[in-house]
Amino acid sequence: MYRLYDYLPSGNGYKARLVLKYLRIPYELVEVDIKRGESRTPEFLVKNPNGRIPLLEVPGKGYLPESHAIISFLAESSDLIPTDPFERARMWHWMCFEQYHVEPNIGTVRFWVNSLQKTRAELGEKLIEKKKSGYAALDVLEHALRDRTYLVGERYSLADISLFAYVHVAHEGGFDLQPYPNVRAWCDRIAGQPGWTPLTEK
Amino acid sequence: MYRLYDYLPSGNGYKARLVLKYLRIPYELVEVDIKRGESRTPEFLVKNPNGRIPLLEVPGKGYLPESHAIISFLAESSDLIPTDPFERARMWHWMCFEQYHVEPNIGTVRFWVNSLQKTRAELGEKLIEKKKSGYAALDVLEHALRDRTYLVGERYSLADISLFAYVHVAHEGGFDLQPYPNVRAWCDRIAGQPGWTPLTEK
Repeated sequence: MYRLYDYLPSGNGYKARLVLKYLRIPYELVEVDIKRGESRTPEFLVKNPNGRIPLLEVPGKGYLPESHAIISFLAESSDLIPTDPFERARMWHWMCFEQYHVEPNIGTVRFWVNSLQKTRAELGEKLIEKKKSGYAALDVLEHALRDRTYLVGERYSLADISLFAYVHVAHEGGFDLQPYPNVRAWCDRIAGQPGWTPLTEK
Repeated sequence: MYRLYDYLPSGNGYKARLVLKYLRIPYELVEVDIKRGESRTPEFLVKNPNGRIPLLEVPGKGYLPESHAIISFLAESSDLIPTDPFERARMWHWMCFEQYHVEPNIGTVRFWVNSLQKTRAELGEKLIEKKKSGYAALDVLEHALRDRTYLVGERYSLADISLFAYVHVAHEGGFDLQPYPNVRAWCDRIAGQPGWTPLTEK
């Protein structure tokens, strides 16, 4: 059975959990409290020298880090990955966009504000820059969803799961999703998918 | 024929050019001077609303942004992508690692120092943080290459091309690769691959 090393409030870990649940793949969850340094212990660093969750233990193969590597491995040959090569590349385009423009801005601000309980005064200029970049990413997403039900090929795919993870909890970092009706409607559609559970649910 | 919108000093664009040349795929290069704002013109934003290069125009399909989406599309069914699903996931793990830990640190510092000619005094704390994160990424890479010829399955793959793009020019951002003998030997192996050309060569 797969073993997922994860921290429940993590959006990156949530991507893996959403895929496992949608595909009804059995797995064992091993909780790693990153706030208490449990992903930086010598024991954990042997499993992932980069000291991060989520980490998937694949029986007979080894350890796989990085949320997008994990979900593409788990969803191999499923309907969460488009069969058309150009659509599959479009899916990766959105996943790259998420990793470069969404997670480091919307995800990081949420971690600072919500998990580390940092104040606006403590964060200063860094917070202003990240919020600006986060809103720019939301603008791109809102524009893309103006005439689409899902991000790629009008079907639910890894692209939606990837973007949804941090976008649907953007408000926890102080982002206002009110001016993004397409994004909000798309979030509702994803929350209606089979196997969907809220972010911190096991 | 494919059309690649690119800025020659870009490591992200270089990834696409290395794959095109290795696979001997004919393409037309359209140079976009990002320093003069040519990727933010109304005309370019229609092609890529995110205003960035590289961008691949695929005849009959449309525009594909994001270097890793582009190279995975171009290399489909070639020997640059492992056929084993776990090895393919390992390839994506390294590409995600590159995008999150290498490009935003080593790539960004190079852009600031080399392209924008910013001084250490102008950059201040931001430079110190990025260099620390960049060296941490190099440590992970050096460790991974201690007993490997290439990053995945002992074969040259997209993972190597992705990481090589910014790592082999890290010195242009002031990073010292001297303490990284495994990384330097791996860079030399990649520079010996078929179709290899220096970064800024068309």
